[in-house]
Amino acid sequence: MEPPLEGRTARKHREIVAAATAAFVDNGYDGTSMDEIAASAGVSKQTVYKHFTDKESLFSEIVLATTGRATGIVQLVTESLADTDDLARDLGRLARQFVTVLMDPQVLRLRRLVISSAARFPELGRTWYAQGFERALAAMASAFADLDARGVLHADDPELAADHFVGLLLWIPINKAMFTGDDDYGASADLDRYADAAVAAFLRAYGRR
Amino acid sequence: MEPPLEGRTARKHREIVAAATAAFVDNGYDGTSMDEIAASAGVSKQTVYKHFTDKESLFSEIVLATTGRATGIVQLVTESLADTDDLARDLGRLARQFVTVLMDPQVLRLRRLVISSAARFPELGRTWYAQGFERALAAMASAFADLDARGVLHADDPELAADHFVGLLLWIPINKAMFTGDDDYGASADLDRYADAAVAAFLRAYGRR
Repeated sequence: MEPPLEGRTARKHREIVAAATAAFVDNGYDGTSMDEIAASAGVSKQTVYKHFTDKESLFSEIVLATTGRATGIVQLVTESLADTDDLARDLGRLARQFVTVLMDPQVLRLRRLVISSAARFPELGRTWYAQGFERALAAMASAFADLDARGVLHADDPELAADHFVGLLLWIPINKAMFTGDDDYGASADLDRYADAAVAAFLRAYGRR
Repeated sequence: MEPPLEGRTARKHREIVAAATAAFVDNGYDGTSMDEIAASAGVSKQTVYKHFTDKESLFSEIVLATTGRATGIVQLVTESLADTDDLARDLGRLARQFVTVLMDPQVLRLRRLVISSAARFPELGRTWYAQGFERALAAMASAFADLDARGVLHADDPELAADHFVGLLLWIPINKAMFTGDDDYGASADLDRYADAAVAAFLRAYGRR
């Protein structure tokens, strides 16, 4: 039985998005053509243009769709820290999961793609930063504010505490992957060590004495 | 009087390098052609090829030349922290200067360029990371090791302390500029506030109690 027309259209849309995501992440904006996307999605170029006016709007949709990942991080932060009765343990678990998610090869490639195209598409970059990066930070700040109110953490500026937590955790592994192009660095690096060291320093700086 | 031949060759080399640097930083690797570089340097394309075998080797020379900037940072770190008798004050000055240098628009554009091309030229990325990024970190680690030996700082793992100092300082402003494409962000942001907050947190984490 043939699927209904709407189902086919939606499926083609999904297939184009999947093919375009892979192409942009692997080859960048300039290195990707609508022809290649059409071929890789198994549709005609005309079909691609029926779904997306041009390459830029396809690119924009794809990049912004990835901010959905931030929702998972927000949940992870909230579940890890709400009602914690052992902050060092739960912050440690959160740090290990957080660095693992951010060092995923696909996430690293996406990060490089957004950075690479930010100068050309600043509006897209700003939206991605607000809906992705800053949303995850805001969830962390909110959790730290609660912990401060409970007297577990000393964070009278919770946004700053969130900035510092993430900076301690990610500065080195993320930059190492970004600059050296080694998107599999997370698999070989001792990410747990980065996480544990960041949590220890953070608790010295922000823990209750 | 005509300058000697060697002088002219060296000058042309410098002019090609300057034109190519500006073109690559502004338009990326793919967006730059040898024709444009020749035109902007005011030489023939043949002359460009006499100095550089191909676009890739020209790009490589230009990117690696910028690791010379790390020398200035190494000096800044050494001069700021050697013989300090007021660590909070001198670390604060270092942090303010360091974030200002790293947030310079040209340095941000160069950072984006290296990150953008790292997946394609990983060897170049690795060399840049080792000669630039890691050299500055090593200078900081060495200064922290001295301060630990003098009993001024508590940093039994000075490399880790250096990672943490820089991560506290730079994670937010650098990422904000990278993702939003706002390379002038340093001019509008309160960088001193980032610096002072990072130093305060660092000293809580690593200062002698």
